[in-house]
Amino acid sequence: MSDVYRPAAEEVAAAYGAEVATVDQIMADSTIDIVMICSVTDTHADLIERSAHAGKAIFCEKPIDLDLDRAKSVVRIVQETGAKLMVGFNRRFDPSFATLKNQLENGDAGSVELITIVSRDPGAPPVDYIEGSGGLFRDMTIHDFDMARWLLGEDPIQVYAAAAALTDPDIGKAGDVDTAVVTLTCASGRMAVITNSRRATYGYDQRIEVHGSGGMLSAGNVLEHTVGRYNGDGVTTAKPLFFFLERYAQAYRNELSVFIDALKSGSEPSPGGADGVRSLVLAEAAVESLRTGSPARIELIE
Amino acid sequence: MSDVYRPAAEEVAAAYGAEVATVDQIMADSTIDIVMICSVTDTHADLIERSAHAGKAIFCEKPIDLDLDRAKSVVRIVQETGAKLMVGFNRRFDPSFATLKNQLENGDAGSVELITIVSRDPGAPPVDYIEGSGGLFRDMTIHDFDMARWLLGEDPIQVYAAAAALTDPDIGKAGDVDTAVVTLTCASGRMAVITNSRRATYGYDQRIEVHGSGGMLSAGNVLEHTVGRYNGDGVTTAKPLFFFLERYAQAYRNELSVFIDALKSGSEPSPGGADGVRSLVLAEAAVESLRTGSPARIELIE
Amino acid sequence: MSDVYRPAAEEVAAAYGAEVATVDQIMADSTIDIVMICSVTDTHADLIERSAHAGKAIFCEKPIDLDLDRAKSVVRIVQETGAKLMVGFNRRFDPSFATLKNQLENGDAGSVELITIVSRDPGAPPVDYIEGSGGLFRDMTIHDFDMARWLLGEDPIQVYAAAAALTDPDIGKAGDVDTAVVTLTCASGRMAVITNSRRATYGYDQRIEVHGSGGMLSAGNVLEHTVGRYNGDGVTTAKPLFFFLERYAQAYRNELSVFIDALKSGSEPSPGGADGVRSLVLAEAAVESLRTGSPARIELIE
Amino acid sequence: MSDVYRPAAEEVAAAYGAEVATVDQIMADSTIDIVMICSVTDTHADLIERSAHAGKAIFCEKPIDLDLDRAKSVVRIVQETGAKLMVGFNRRFDPSFATLKNQLENGDAGSVELITIVSRDPGAPPVDYIEGSGGLFRDMTIHDFDMARWLLGEDPIQVYAAAAALTDPDIGKAGDVDTAVVTLTCASGRMAVITNSRRATYGYDQRIEVHGSGGMLSAGNVLEHTVGRYNGDGVTTAKPLFFFLERYAQAYRNELSVFIDALKSGSEPSPGGADGVRSLVLAEAAVESLRTGSPARIELIE
Repeated sequence: MSDVYRPAAEEVAAAYGAEVATVDQIMADSTIDIVMICSVTDTHADLIERSAHAGKAIFCEKPIDLDLDRAKSVVRIVQETGAKLMVGFNRRFDPSFATLKNQLENGDAGSVELITIVSRDPGAPPVDYIEGSGGLFRDMTIHDFDMARWLLGEDPIQVYAAAAALTDPDIGKAGDVDTAVVTLTCASGRMAVITNSRRATYGYDQRIEVHGSGGMLSAGNVLEHTVGRYNGDGVTTAKPLFFFLERYAQAYRNELSVFIDALKSGSEPSPGGADGVRSLVLAEAAVESLRTGSPARIELIE
Repeated sequence: MSDVYRPAAEEVAAAYGAEVATVDQIMADSTIDIVMICSVTDTHADLIERSAHAGKAIFCEKPIDLDLDRAKSVVRIVQETGAKLMVGFNRRFDPSFATLKNQLENGDAGSVELITIVSRDPGAPPVDYIEGSGGLFRDMTIHDFDMARWLLGEDPIQVYAAAAALTDPDIGKAGDVDTAVVTLTCASGRMAVITNSRRATYGYDQRIEVHGSGGMLSAGNVLEHTVGRYNGDGVTTAKPLFFFLERYAQAYRNELSVFIDALKSGSEPSPGGADGVRSLVLAEAAVESLRTGSPARIELIE
Repeated sequence: MSDVYRPAAEEVAAAYGAEVATVDQIMADSTIDIVMICSVTDTHADLIERSAHAGKAIFCEKPIDLDLDRAKSVVRIVQETGAKLMVGFNRRFDPSFATLKNQLENGDAGSVELITIVSRDPGAPPVDYIEGSGGLFRDMTIHDFDMARWLLGEDPIQVYAAAAALTDPDIGKAGDVDTAVVTLTCASGRMAVITNSRRATYGYDQRIEVHGSGGMLSAGNVLEHTVGRYNGDGVTTAKPLFFFLERYAQAYRNELSVFIDALKSGSEPSPGGADGVRSLVLAEAAVESLRTGSPARIELIE
Repeated sequence: MSDVYRPAAEEVAAAYGAEVATVDQIMADSTIDIVMICSVTDTHADLIERSAHAGKAIFCEKPIDLDLDRAKSVVRIVQETGAKLMVGFNRRFDPSFATLKNQLENGDAGSVELITIVSRDPGAPPVDYIEGSGGLFRDMTIHDFDMARWLLGEDPIQVYAAAAALTDPDIGKAGDVDTAVVTLTCASGRMAVITNSRRATYGYDQRIEVHGSGGMLSAGNVLEHTVGRYNGDGVTTAKPLFFFLERYAQAYRNELSVFIDALKSGSEPSPGGADGVRSLVLAEAAVESLRTGSPARIELIE
């Protein structure tokens, strides 16, 4: 394994019996079949391209790149080289969201009409991070865009974003927002609405509701424990699991299993490069909508 | 209407356009078809007998009498006079408990194996009341005995009671208990367990679970509201409705409708006198068990 | 009481010991202090005006009028005559929503940032009704606009509506929509999002979430009963109470108590005429937004 | 590692990089500090004794032995040799039950009055297993006895067991029961009631309620997912995690961490040998009570 800060790589390698190498060494090593890219965002595009050219199968954390054109060109190279690429939209592998998706495909909600996604972080990252993050829509909402696409079964053609910096004025000073309502509209009339906040005092709030012609499917938070405390104040139960590492621990495991299974069977890993690009397209449209104050239309022909 | 404290009767009568009368006048008034007995316990038996002899249909609050032999003789008179008698086991008419019973009869739990009844009051009555109440089993648990019989579909043949005065030492000094576990066993092997407390800081706790060969049916508390408050301490929701007047408001209305409907259709009101007696038999057995420290057997041939 | 179909008035009057009269008689009768207007929408404005001129206190079902200018002129007349007017936004008096509002005012959610309102009917009214209803936003969403204003504590300045006819094509043919996402934005940056559907197979879905700097407050549905059925398929619990008559039965009672209390104490009933107008302003803006495809701005200086 | 069926040991050893050895080799190997005994019940006592004499720290699955006298003599040897022994009552380390215990110790329920433990398996083991299991109370309820002792903070002095074979007649033919209500009474008057079933169609049901002077603490089941399916039948949610391997996966991990931490710090592991013996005492008393039909008294002076 490799890390720009070599001691970090050494520590993890020692714990798991791995070897430390430079990126060049990894790319040149023909005994390495798979590259997992979990580095900072602005290195993703280069590393995907190099890995594709080196004939590796690739797992890359979202996003492919903050720049849409760059992301598209990376995906083109992946296609040209015939490399297998999975993009780390881990939420698709969360046991509850995956169960919701299965029930949806079983027809348990009938035809989808309206999807509601709530996504709130327990607390905002440092303003430093926010400045390099590409902003709320590219950094945080992008996961929700992927969930919306995955559940709508159809790509939205219009995006309207209302947003403000309400949780921390410094986020506003840094040119970003921290609270948002994003409405996605499809050609069929189907809609999805995403509400985001960078801060929720009760913890990491990750919920989805799919309303359709046959009923509703909802997936709620996973709680820290099942204890209820009953007294004169009422009944107090647990908060959601603290943050993404806790909530999505099983999703990360499942995601890698699915990736490995796809490679073994020779099928295309999913979500792939095109999914990475399309969610970025929605993020760009949200940025544009917020800038103009009007809905942004999306050209689906790429 | 009548009340030993005439001003009370006058106040209610004025509010609802009723007339105040003595008990003698009511009994003698041939235009009165139905008598509702909601007086103190030790007047029930006499009033039922007089009403039966006077040819009235009778609704009487539980219990018929604290003395089992007296209760049995009252029921015999009711039978001999052909009077219609309904005993006020209101919980059978609670919307949730009635729904549970319907589902049970639909076979949704299969064959009943084990019933769990939780019954806790928000706070103990004054020790004065307790002294004249006949004790926890005759006063409070009697409702749970009726629920157990109603749901078991079979009369228990054995009762074991463990109990103590834990919530208030004065209750113990008055010779009563306030916390109890009562186990009922049927000839078929089916069981029910009742847990009681005279005091729950979180309010009136009234729950039932029926476990059977096909699954479980549970009926929970009805809460004051549906608000959840989410913050760093977790999620706080409402307490149960305060006490029996709030929780069973709808049950009381439904109970009277069923009573009136039975009279109109000429069918026997249920629960009737025999139900009143059989629950009292279980209460007596619990008293006996607590006294001896061993289970008490019940002779079902009455 | 009065009804354009006199037998209807006679039936209700007989049941409650009231008298039947014409509207003229009611207006002329100086012993009548209060007029309750629960007639069809297009009679509201006239009846309010006549009642105000006749010196009556007025309770009127929403909306004052489907035409905004007409509604404004009615409210002006109410103000000029000094009449007391309460508009029937019954949801403010629902025990759960009122509890949520109280907790909000206690500071339990801190400063409001984002409000989410879900409002779905069990089934659409006949297309006949829809044609005369003024459309989804004036007929159904207007209740949600009132809830949003009430909880935001601030009037929105911009409205964006995305909507489609998804549940019934005949609704689309009648020129209306049945599924909607409406985003409200305030000058402070606070937002509210309302999602509507004319049809939910699981019943009447009425939920609110208020997210703020201190946490979240949610108010959920009131269910038909508390029974849970456990078996190999999981756990099945009850649907929400069927429709507004069931869900808001207590709200209607509380609403009238508050109205009467306001009249007795000489204070202004709330919500009043201005609330009726402002919710209608939001509905008009939603209609405008849907027509243009862009957010509609609201002039708050009326 | 060692297994009477050597290929099983070889398979696990290969997967984790361990070595296979005989028990004799393990006992003689001075580089091995800790022995984990997870073999069949009737080997526990011997292996604990040998490990104690060999100077090992010992983790042993419950029970120490099905015979109470044998179990007591083993614990005596452990004490005499100064060996460290932890008995595998894994439920104490379940995150929800551990949270409940913490809140109890924080005083959140005040003084304990009544504990209710529900413990149901998804399905009965084969009758073969049951015949060698020591019966329901020694095999299954023993976990609940440990939980009751742990939460009561006091050893019961009396046990009453009502039980029957209701789920499978073959269990009855094998001389065992499959459905039980066990009441434990302490000298202070505190009580605990355990309800067991060998079969629940909705899965592994593991719940605890502690009622005390200050309120109630409850710990519920952990569900397979958080999805709710809403339609005309109501709302359907998930079953509990399938069985003990799923429900207590985290408990097993936590248990071993606590054991290792105790060894590192030189403190006595808990639960230890005395806990193993005392739960067995309760199981014996339950067997005795079922045989006689009366409560069995326990001599606490051992």
